[in-house]
Amino acid sequence: MAGTGVFADIIEGDVYKYYAEGEWRKSSSGKSVPIINPTTRKPQYKVQACTQEEVNKVMEAAKVAQKAWARTPLWKRADLLHRAAALLKEHKEPIAECLVKEIAKPAKDAVSEVVRSGDLISYTAEEGVRILGEGKLLVSDSFPGNERNKYCLTSKIPLGLVLAIPPFNYPVNLAVSKIGPALIAGNALVLKPPTQGAVAALHMIHCFHLAGFPKGLISCVTGKGSEIGDFLTMHPGVNCISFTGGDTGIAISKKAGMIPLQMELGGKDACIVLEDADLNLVAANIVKGGFSYSGQRCTAVKVVLVIESVADAVVEKVKSKIAKLTVGPPEDDCDITPVITESSANFIEGLIVDAKEKGATFCQEYRREGNLIWPLLLDHVRPDMRIAWEEPFGPVLPVIRISSVEEGIHHCNASNFGLQGCVFTRDINKAIMISDAMETGTVQINSAPARGPDHFPFQGLKDSGIGSQGITNSINMMTKIKSTVINLPSPSYTMG
Amino acid sequence: MAGTGVFADIIEGDVYKYYAEGEWRKSSSGKSVPIINPTTRKPQYKVQACTQEEVNKVMEAAKVAQKAWARTPLWKRADLLHRAAALLKEHKEPIAECLVKEIAKPAKDAVSEVVRSGDLISYTAEEGVRILGEGKLLVSDSFPGNERNKYCLTSKIPLGLVLAIPPFNYPVNLAVSKIGPALIAGNALVLKPPTQGAVAALHMIHCFHLAGFPKGLISCVTGKGSEIGDFLTMHPGVNCISFTGGDTGIAISKKAGMIPLQMELGGKDACIVLEDADLNLVAANIVKGGFSYSGQRCTAVKVVLVIESVADAVVEKVKSKIAKLTVGPPEDDCDITPVITESSANFIEGLIVDAKEKGATFCQEYRREGNLIWPLLLDHVRPDMRIAWEEPFGPVLPVIRISSVEEGIHHCNASNFGLQGCVFTRDINKAIMISDAMETGTVQINSAPARGPDHFPFQGLKDSGIGSQGITNSINMMTKIKSTVINLPSPSYTMG
Amino acid sequence: MAGTGVFADIIEGDVYKYYAEGEWRKSSSGKSVPIINPTTRKPQYKVQACTQEEVNKVMEAAKVAQKAWARTPLWKRADLLHRAAALLKEHKEPIAECLVKEIAKPAKDAVSEVVRSGDLISYTAEEGVRILGEGKLLVSDSFPGNERNKYCLTSKIPLGLVLAIPPFNYPVNLAVSKIGPALIAGNALVLKPPTQGAVAALHMIHCFHLAGFPKGLISCVTGKGSEIGDFLTMHPGVNCISFTGGDTGIAISKKAGMIPLQMELGGKDACIVLEDADLNLVAANIVKGGFSYSGQRCTAVKVVLVIESVADAVVEKVKSKIAKLTVGPPEDDCDITPVITESSANFIEGLIVDAKEKGATFCQEYRREGNLIWPLLLDHVRPDMRIAWEEPFGPVLPVIRISSVEEGIHHCNASNFGLQGCVFTRDINKAIMISDAMETGTVQINSAPARGPDHFPFQGLKDSGIGSQGITNSINMMTKIKSTVINLPSPSYTMG
Amino acid sequence: MAGTGVFADIIEGDVYKYYAEGEWRKSSSGKSVPIINPTTRKPQYKVQACTQEEVNKVMEAAKVAQKAWARTPLWKRADLLHRAAALLKEHKEPIAECLVKEIAKPAKDAVSEVVRSGDLISYTAEEGVRILGEGKLLVSDSFPGNERNKYCLTSKIPLGLVLAIPPFNYPVNLAVSKIGPALIAGNALVLKPPTQGAVAALHMIHCFHLAGFPKGLISCVTGKGSEIGDFLTMHPGVNCISFTGGDTGIAISKKAGMIPLQMELGGKDACIVLEDADLNLVAANIVKGGFSYSGQRCTAVKVVLVIESVADAVVEKVKSKIAKLTVGPPEDDCDITPVITESSANFIEGLIVDAKEKGATFCQEYRREGNLIWPLLLDHVRPDMRIAWEEPFGPVLPVIRISSVEEGIHHCNASNFGLQGCVFTRDINKAIMISDAMETGTVQINSAPARGPDHFPFQGLKDSGIGSQGITNSINMMTKIKSTVINLPSPSYTMG
Repeated sequence: MAGTGVFADIIEGDVYKYYAEGEWRKSSSGKSVPIINPTTRKPQYKVQACTQEEVNKVMEAAKVAQKAWARTPLWKRADLLHRAAALLKEHKEPIAECLVKEIAKPAKDAVSEVVRSGDLISYTAEEGVRILGEGKLLVSDSFPGNERNKYCLTSKIPLGLVLAIPPFNYPVNLAVSKIGPALIAGNALVLKPPTQGAVAALHMIHCFHLAGFPKGLISCVTGKGSEIGDFLTMHPGVNCISFTGGDTGIAISKKAGMIPLQMELGGKDACIVLEDADLNLVAANIVKGGFSYSGQRCTAVKVVLVIESVADAVVEKVKSKIAKLTVGPPEDDCDITPVITESSANFIEGLIVDAKEKGATFCQEYRREGNLIWPLLLDHVRPDMRIAWEEPFGPVLPVIRISSVEEGIHHCNASNFGLQGCVFTRDINKAIMISDAMETGTVQINSAPARGPDHFPFQGLKDSGIGSQGITNSINMMTKIKSTVINLPSPSYTMG
Repeated sequence: MAGTGVFADIIEGDVYKYYAEGEWRKSSSGKSVPIINPTTRKPQYKVQACTQEEVNKVMEAAKVAQKAWARTPLWKRADLLHRAAALLKEHKEPIAECLVKEIAKPAKDAVSEVVRSGDLISYTAEEGVRILGEGKLLVSDSFPGNERNKYCLTSKIPLGLVLAIPPFNYPVNLAVSKIGPALIAGNALVLKPPTQGAVAALHMIHCFHLAGFPKGLISCVTGKGSEIGDFLTMHPGVNCISFTGGDTGIAISKKAGMIPLQMELGGKDACIVLEDADLNLVAANIVKGGFSYSGQRCTAVKVVLVIESVADAVVEKVKSKIAKLTVGPPEDDCDITPVITESSANFIEGLIVDAKEKGATFCQEYRREGNLIWPLLLDHVRPDMRIAWEEPFGPVLPVIRISSVEEGIHHCNASNFGLQGCVFTRDINKAIMISDAMETGTVQINSAPARGPDHFPFQGLKDSGIGSQGITNSINMMTKIKSTVINLPSPSYTMG
Repeated sequence: MAGTGVFADIIEGDVYKYYAEGEWRKSSSGKSVPIINPTTRKPQYKVQACTQEEVNKVMEAAKVAQKAWARTPLWKRADLLHRAAALLKEHKEPIAECLVKEIAKPAKDAVSEVVRSGDLISYTAEEGVRILGEGKLLVSDSFPGNERNKYCLTSKIPLGLVLAIPPFNYPVNLAVSKIGPALIAGNALVLKPPTQGAVAALHMIHCFHLAGFPKGLISCVTGKGSEIGDFLTMHPGVNCISFTGGDTGIAISKKAGMIPLQMELGGKDACIVLEDADLNLVAANIVKGGFSYSGQRCTAVKVVLVIESVADAVVEKVKSKIAKLTVGPPEDDCDITPVITESSANFIEGLIVDAKEKGATFCQEYRREGNLIWPLLLDHVRPDMRIAWEEPFGPVLPVIRISSVEEGIHHCNASNFGLQGCVFTRDINKAIMISDAMETGTVQINSAPARGPDHFPFQGLKDSGIGSQGITNSINMMTKIKSTVINLPSPSYTMG
Repeated sequence: MAGTGVFADIIEGDVYKYYAEGEWRKSSSGKSVPIINPTTRKPQYKVQACTQEEVNKVMEAAKVAQKAWARTPLWKRADLLHRAAALLKEHKEPIAECLVKEIAKPAKDAVSEVVRSGDLISYTAEEGVRILGEGKLLVSDSFPGNERNKYCLTSKIPLGLVLAIPPFNYPVNLAVSKIGPALIAGNALVLKPPTQGAVAALHMIHCFHLAGFPKGLISCVTGKGSEIGDFLTMHPGVNCISFTGGDTGIAISKKAGMIPLQMELGGKDACIVLEDADLNLVAANIVKGGFSYSGQRCTAVKVVLVIESVADAVVEKVKSKIAKLTVGPPEDDCDITPVITESSANFIEGLIVDAKEKGATFCQEYRREGNLIWPLLLDHVRPDMRIAWEEPFGPVLPVIRISSVEEGIHHCNASNFGLQGCVFTRDINKAIMISDAMETGTVQINSAPARGPDHFPFQGLKDSGIGSQGITNSINMMTKIKSTVINLPSPSYTMG
């Protein structure tokens, strides 16, 4: 159970501690931040409200720890990560419990998130050993006018300190996807978890603590955004920010200094359906893509663009699948669970009301109880409705009927988002040419958008982000290049 | 005109000289080898019948020249190759003339071969600058138990001397695809051209001579296979053989010493046609793929495997396109020209007779005049006919009707060849899964087999060869790795 | 001569035009900006003072042109760049003339800059063909729990519009090092040249115009920083900024949106000299590294850290070499020419005065006439002097005597800069371990810092920049990744 | 203990079985091959004398098993290898016991060999996941004249069946360095262990059996070379040979068909010592490099080339270290143990006698008892002595005094071997320039030659082998490339 057993160390009274300098600590602020359970809409947990001074200390400790960590053999770094991965999997139950209570994630999915996170860490460790263990040797005589008297050796070196800011929807998985790369690459890591999801994150961090990472290398600070949000992102001790979330990311980008940024923000992933598509496959993917975790996923299907001639059939198939979705509390493993906050539910309702007023067809009756919104498919959505462009992050999905592929591509490309998209067609030429034409970071052919498998590149264009994620890309992004040039007194050519 | 102008140097009397130690020479054998024009079936040119002693001298000179060449800056090597490419394009006419006369290549195709060869050389030069100019830096602490006290620098170094043996059908292009990579990688090069095509090759070599390559680095010896064939391939001075041709390649492989081999031998490229294919595209590709240069191409379509339900339509469309092919001498740019030798024509005829006896349907009347065979499509070919498995290297193409995709894949995989294959279907899933299932070096989806573009990998499985070609792969193949390990007295980690 | 011949098009009256939508235009502002010749300290040229509205038009045109350019075959993009390179070399004289007059670059160096720029463009073209022509194919079954049913194809795609801002010291070379990568990668390009150097840049841009690049793809706007500086760097149409210069870069970083930044800012490159160094080599490199182009180079040697035991000898040797430097106007090819502006000369003088007051030893008498400052070596400099830390960007070089290698490394790492550094020693172990310990983007062993050869990575750590330059890295930086995932209905494994 | 516990299955009576089709079997030959303990010179173990028919069956079963294995997800292949690695480490004691008895390896080294083999397998598994999980995407418009209408996807596919033939000196480690790469790459594997070392190899194979690899995928056949040696290497079912050993490799190369070969044969690794070297480091490395496992290592130091001026000092230091080496049975962990066979001891003695006759200086008295030869340093060796060129594979080391570096390089390059070499100098320029000049696959700067760490490339030039080993290179070598080209009806460019 959360906060018990090996996790007893991380809580005192009813307030979870924060993690700094290798210890679990109470904030000197004496204050805590409550975490509201989306299902009960009542406080579930409390975490420390850390101070700016505590953040400063964390940064100083990290700086010292990082220098030693950067001098630790790669296989030893990997070894510690493997240990953390094993501990995470071993303790999947209490961590999953937090996910159920904090973010209303269906129980089975909560367990999956933790297990998948363990796999991700291990894969990252081995990938990093290879990426960090190999540089280039360049010679000077490639360039006109040069002899071969300069041997340039390039290495990938750590950036220093990485600030990781994951979102509420995958507070464990999207944390380790930043922590793993940061650590294997030789960086120190400060985690600022989302408020909802913070307790799951603290449990996860404890697995790293138990694995035996050096004191100060990893920290986790909790608190109010107003107090430590900008303070963290603009802190001179931060050498890299890896952020997943919403618009805040753009604001961070504009304020952050001259440091590498990895941002994965919102999306309005379109699903383009052509006449020749396998419509059962389409329907299954729309429902899975649109309603998993109640639509609270960056890569959820957020608008269906379907060729008129098959639109009725698609809508009918989707409707019948939606009818089978279970709705209720995450503890019961329901398909649709309460959305994260009341304000989120209100925002979603606003989009629905707007669509209703402008004439969208409701395939189901709209129903809401507290934060719980029943799944809703809106047909005949038109570009003048907000939901055609905005991201509900809830279990509501608009269908726009299109008369040509070009119309679908145009709608997709007119969005300010560019995360993923998908196209359903059997035709190899259309599949590839549409994928080439869609201005998104990834296009899935014949499947719903998806971040994984985790070694695939994952990136958003336009307002959907900057930098490419996926294990390999994240590791590379959290390093910089250093060159050593050996200058010889006369040219030398390697003979054999 | 061949043998005139700048090329006057390469001929004396009516015998073309060979190229050694930077000079055009007559063989001490006092003998020559006649080259028969396939169209006239009369001697067209004569080349030197070099002796084993002359081969030995070439090898010695190459060894000396190579050591200096390997110490020449990459950009200078590239510069010389660019010059050779420009000269080749400048002198495309006389070289193309040789191709017309020696191998009955249609006039326009002959010019294309030379021009494309110039492009290939330039591309190779620039590719080589990059491949050869970059090695790896590996550190020791990737492997369990090691600190970072060993820095391993890997370089690509030349093999030494490359023996290039191109075939008659592309005596210029398939020579430069070996010469370019060999030279940019710092190797010496000995060319043994095919008998038919030798004079085109000698002209081409003269462009390298004019470009100013160092004396002895490049040689071209002509002569009788019985005298210098095995002598060359088993010569201890040879460090690599790049061969394109037929079964001889397997024999060479078994006799050659412990040296890297690049062999591109025969093929029996299948064209699998599915029900949903674009049949006009299919027919166009079968005719182009099967009858270009009278079918004398490794990557010609050599058997059509068509699903019964569309077989009639495919055969009909192909027949009507075949009817439009022009047949006659290469000088007139005919589509179908005489095959390379009388024995080749006889072999082709043997396959046709066998098919006739076993009941194949002739879509055209069989017609032959000397080496000229009219294009022929054989329908209802069955696996008991020789032409179902053997490579005619002529303008005759068997069609096997299949009842399932699996039958087609099975026929393809039962061949001892594995060069290329193609599949025509609109279906993305089938296209990829069939490609994955076909055991050939390359599978073309919705196009006839093809070697180019020349930077694509090109390789045969099973008896079709060993090693992968294509510009990048050929350069890599003609190098070996050398490592330098710097051992430090104590671990050192690159900081930034 | 500048502004004549083919360049007559780019000037009207005595004001040089700006380049937009494929045309040379006068600004609607009716205003011009004068360019002061550092030698004469009088206005030499005039350029347009462009308006924000003109900037907007340039951005719109670029957006349109870029979409078409991104659909242009790679070899055609390369072909145009090769043409621009050839034109640049052909017209090296008038462009070099501008460099002499605008930035007082010694005449021969001015010509070299232009020629080297042509080489850089050509190398970039060929490099880009390779980088852009190759993506990855990733399969899903690498990651635990997955079958091979997902094939992920990654491509490198253009960012959109790149804003290039080069500095005054290499207004041609550091422009093409941004323009070449931007264009080959399929981007549009807006150049904002430095005021001094603007006219050379306009001539250079004309070579691209003459090469035949599509209308609107390339633009060059001149004007006052106060009017269009921030307007350009914060413009929503800009998708990438590549900047070389000073502190301004940090300010740009903090204001720019969520776009990739490539910044190469200042440096305080240290030269560490050990007891066992080849002191003649050291002295030659200090003088070349410290005084070339009067020290106005990012990678100039900016502080010498010499072990006490050899300090006297090093200082003596450097002094005697400095005595041989010629001082005077750039037209006479003098080694030391006037620094770029009077304010720069004043700043340099400030550093010298501070050093004098704090007790530095002057190895030469301090002498200045207008912008012309005679070369000056300051011995016995201590960390309390400004010149120990600040970048003079002029012909003055401080020597700090150190008692240990560690002291040298510590001084180097205490700087807020981290561009390059160099170490002189014969000892292989010390060379590598010191290089590993120095926190700079590059360390040169036994040679002065240097940006080239241009295919080597080039990057600054800390306040010296973000991103890595060098041809390959710049091309990569000016692209982003896009993935297409083919989802198969069942697993497929490639057989052979 | 060997042959007991879980290993009881692999022996019946006193004869160890062979492994085929997932079972431990007795040969139908009814014959066995005795294995002589080098220390006792008496039979220690017996293994099956397999027949050609049994080899045929193994090949057939492998072919079937391989097709299924090639369709197994990469992570599952890796998982099985990790299990085999863990089992190997778990059972290190009985396997090490075999190494002590069969090949007289000192007890501690025997355990190390097994443990290091486990690490190697795990590293290989993870490396393979990455190498096999990634191919290339190439587009057609890189090459002049092409639009982007062809997308070429390249994959690495298995070769089929790999025949692994390790040598006696590392019968476990040099077996798994072939088995691991073969298996992760999707190949079947037939192991032909050396006679001495066969029983250790059989135990090792049992760990793979216990790990649960599919039936028929892995086999291990034992027997007489005269009966099954050529039969195996020339078997048409073999698609790749990975051999480590002596001259036999060259013979195999000449007989093998058109299949990839990886050969690591002998070496005569030179140690060049310069005046400025750290002589204590030199002496330590000469003794470790020359006498570990009694000199029976491919990468042993086999000739010392020392500059005259420091020769006396080096010889003195080496002598004093040799004096401390313990000599005796492997069970006592002696440094020097009996060499592998009596004929080997005789051969070594022959070299010593020859050197004696020709005037070499003996730094120790020559002493031999049975197969046990006391360590011997021969000074003043000259090029006319056999030991200057031949490989003793025993505890005897020649010292040649040289008057210049060039003389040393010349001696090194005059050898028909080219495995490794080492150079001791403090000078960075000399170190690199000598390394470049030495014609060997690897040059170690300031350390004795060494194969490891196992992820470093490892290769021999000239008669020392073909192909490059090391984990990454071995995996690559055991795959071939397959391309799938998607041909689009019109050009398509990836937009973003």
